[in-house]
Amino acid sequence: MQDAGPLLEMLRSICGDSAVLTGADMAGYASDWRDMFHGKPLCVLRPANTAEVAKSVVACVGAGVGIVPQGGNTGLAGGATPDDSGRQVVISLDRMTAIRRIDSIGMTVELEAGVILQTAKEAAAAENRLLPISLAAEGSARIGGLIATNAGGVDVLRYGMTRGLVLGLEVVLPDGQVLHRLRHLRKDNAGYDLKQLFIGSEGSLGIITAAVLRLVPLPRHRTTALISVPDIAAAVRLYARAQDDIGEALSAFELISGDGLALVATHMGQEAPVKGADWYLLIEAGSSLPGLRTAMETLMEAAFEEGWATDGVLAESEAQADGLWSLRESLTEAEGKAGGAIKHDLSVPIPEIADFLQETGKMLRSMVPEARLNIFGHLGDGNLHYNVMNVAKADSARVNTAVHDMVARYNGSISAEHGLGQYRTAEWARLATPPEHDLTHRIKRALDPMGVMNPGKVVPLHD
Amino acid sequence: MQDAGPLLEMLRSICGDSAVLTGADMAGYASDWRDMFHGKPLCVLRPANTAEVAKSVVACVGAGVGIVPQGGNTGLAGGATPDDSGRQVVISLDRMTAIRRIDSIGMTVELEAGVILQTAKEAAAAENRLLPISLAAEGSARIGGLIATNAGGVDVLRYGMTRGLVLGLEVVLPDGQVLHRLRHLRKDNAGYDLKQLFIGSEGSLGIITAAVLRLVPLPRHRTTALISVPDIAAAVRLYARAQDDIGEALSAFELISGDGLALVATHMGQEAPVKGADWYLLIEAGSSLPGLRTAMETLMEAAFEEGWATDGVLAESEAQADGLWSLRESLTEAEGKAGGAIKHDLSVPIPEIADFLQETGKMLRSMVPEARLNIFGHLGDGNLHYNVMNVAKADSARVNTAVHDMVARYNGSISAEHGLGQYRTAEWARLATPPEHDLTHRIKRALDPMGVMNPGKVVPLHD
Repeated sequence: MQDAGPLLEMLRSICGDSAVLTGADMAGYASDWRDMFHGKPLCVLRPANTAEVAKSVVACVGAGVGIVPQGGNTGLAGGATPDDSGRQVVISLDRMTAIRRIDSIGMTVELEAGVILQTAKEAAAAENRLLPISLAAEGSARIGGLIATNAGGVDVLRYGMTRGLVLGLEVVLPDGQVLHRLRHLRKDNAGYDLKQLFIGSEGSLGIITAAVLRLVPLPRHRTTALISVPDIAAAVRLYARAQDDIGEALSAFELISGDGLALVATHMGQEAPVKGADWYLLIEAGSSLPGLRTAMETLMEAAFEEGWATDGVLAESEAQADGLWSLRESLTEAEGKAGGAIKHDLSVPIPEIADFLQETGKMLRSMVPEARLNIFGHLGDGNLHYNVMNVAKADSARVNTAVHDMVARYNGSISAEHGLGQYRTAEWARLATPPEHDLTHRIKRALDPMGVMNPGKVVPLHD
Repeated sequence: MQDAGPLLEMLRSICGDSAVLTGADMAGYASDWRDMFHGKPLCVLRPANTAEVAKSVVACVGAGVGIVPQGGNTGLAGGATPDDSGRQVVISLDRMTAIRRIDSIGMTVELEAGVILQTAKEAAAAENRLLPISLAAEGSARIGGLIATNAGGVDVLRYGMTRGLVLGLEVVLPDGQVLHRLRHLRKDNAGYDLKQLFIGSEGSLGIITAAVLRLVPLPRHRTTALISVPDIAAAVRLYARAQDDIGEALSAFELISGDGLALVATHMGQEAPVKGADWYLLIEAGSSLPGLRTAMETLMEAAFEEGWATDGVLAESEAQADGLWSLRESLTEAEGKAGGAIKHDLSVPIPEIADFLQETGKMLRSMVPEARLNIFGHLGDGNLHYNVMNVAKADSARVNTAVHDMVARYNGSISAEHGLGQYRTAEWARLATPPEHDLTHRIKRALDPMGVMNPGKVVPLHD
């Protein structure tokens, strides 16, 4: 822009000099953590409270610059990275880190957007409650970003997506008004549920500054198993049986390919404590009722009898359970060390996963014979991280498109849990139906008529 | 309107003659089941499929008449009753009753809007799955209406509101376009979650014609207890302990006042099988794990030891459990026989329920000394049906306003689960903040710029 001086001066007067970054200290906010997306912000703003956020929004709108809200910057779709125009202001919530209140009886927590997930979970656990969002980035992901992206993770099977945990929100709107709805209520059907607009909209309709989240009882017992399974059909049958026998206590049902665990063995030096197989399942259940471990043992016996499992181990200690999870959590890093991949975050109906994998694998083999797959994900949610390795850069868009087309044929989603950000917006636009385009733009225009909030994210700039 | 003939002719050509009611056969659709709200529709339309709904919407919009979608007509806020202008068309979904598909592995059901809840639950149960919406009207409430009002009920404590069960929707939009998103996916973060707009918006943004709902495992065991408690503080402490000890298996924690059960005894001839008390709790838990009954027994022992309970019974059979529930479900009918009440469907934060009840009771005693209270509700959700009996008609608006003002002071909701309909829209408008008004109207205008969808419901006509 011609002269950023007056805007920077105004922002400094609102937030204080040290809260307005314009130099090398912007680096950590200008690119995403995987170094895939790179931006050039006009400045990075670190307000201390909601009033400063609101005033800053008004100043930015007045100057005609775009606003990019940012939490822990752990997203996987570039949703929090500014463009390279030098005309966007990053507003980071990382100084708003107060946990305002935990109500262990009503089972709610009220907290500011910048609280780190792990911190919030620890605070809840101290009150014998669980904040049931579990994902690899929980040591740095922040509450506002988790809500803005409707984060998933490994607990969704039992507790649902982040959306279902949000009881109340405080949001700074694109015109600087503050929607203040921090209610500690499980039930509130008085009028449109306005907070739903902001959950999962990736900062394109407003900036989440605080939230009330629902907590759940902290299960007293957990039991974790790693099982080798011969094929996807067996895995799906075992999943159905687990729902029958363990029911509400089943909290994770993770699928990992043999090729994935081989990468972990090669690049991370971690070996699975079960016999090799094409597929593995990592199953976890938790409950405050006794009898959980017995139920899991019975389930595993049934799996062997039915031929759904070829080997398996039930963790004998917390440490052993953590070790099994460590295999799962090392998949992404191992993949990175092996050269990276074209990533897909897709979901398909569970009964069709086997067919989807077979058909998509066949298609890719004919398209890019040298490709290797690293597939893992949340079988109980139908959500697969379908990562294609060893593909030339020139082929990557073609692979992406082909996989997404297949997902569409299976009535699946091209972004199950990571959101669109800037990474998948064009693909969404390609595959969405006319009423979906129409409604999306109507909502965006109604709430952000000037187009100042996270421009180009989720909603395509030109459609 | 001047001449309804051409519109009626067009609607008959779209839906068939027998699907357009204009005479005495409109009666069941023109008033609500409690006979509190009365309308005079231009006609009642009963389309057979989504295409007929869409074409009918276009015809109605062309003729400049309002559209009132209707499901089972079991609402409690007049949301499905037309006005008395003779210029609104009721579109009933009661002929669209197909259960299209149950996926017992992926745990989903796809069904049309007119399916009756009980029918859907029976179909799910046949597959060993539970559709976890439980309410008194389930024998006549229809899926579309349950979604459009984001229905609550007695299972919310464990399974959440209806919103959390909706995986996909098909919606006829106010311009006749059809949003077709019937995906069987637990996770879908590709773009704005457009279906959220229609859930709980009471037909004011579009007509829900079909849905995909999430199912859960059918618990194998259930255990039900009725407990006499000395006061609300004891009830809340027992609730917290139940969360610790029974956790995820706790499915209902209902509060009933002694006065309420006295009404049931007097007018319905049903006596509670426990000693009299100021308050009672009806507690239910369900699980597929063994050990549930033992856990409930332990909980009751603790309640006696701590002085939180003065008497209690644990059902020894399904029939006995049903008998305990029958006490709860007879409260509304008993109240009706005793002369009715000014009803409130409110929620407040759980730890503040005791103070709220004390303060509101004191206020009402000084305001209307002859008033009697019939209070019951879902303690675990902070949701109370706070019904004030024996109040002269002239005082009813004053009582309503005073109770709602108190709810607002406690940061509660004036409509926890019944919605606004036409009954509470003015009260919402009185209590909502400027940003809430602003956003609500922006959404309404963006999706329904002509104002044809359920005019005057949820969103005030003049603000």
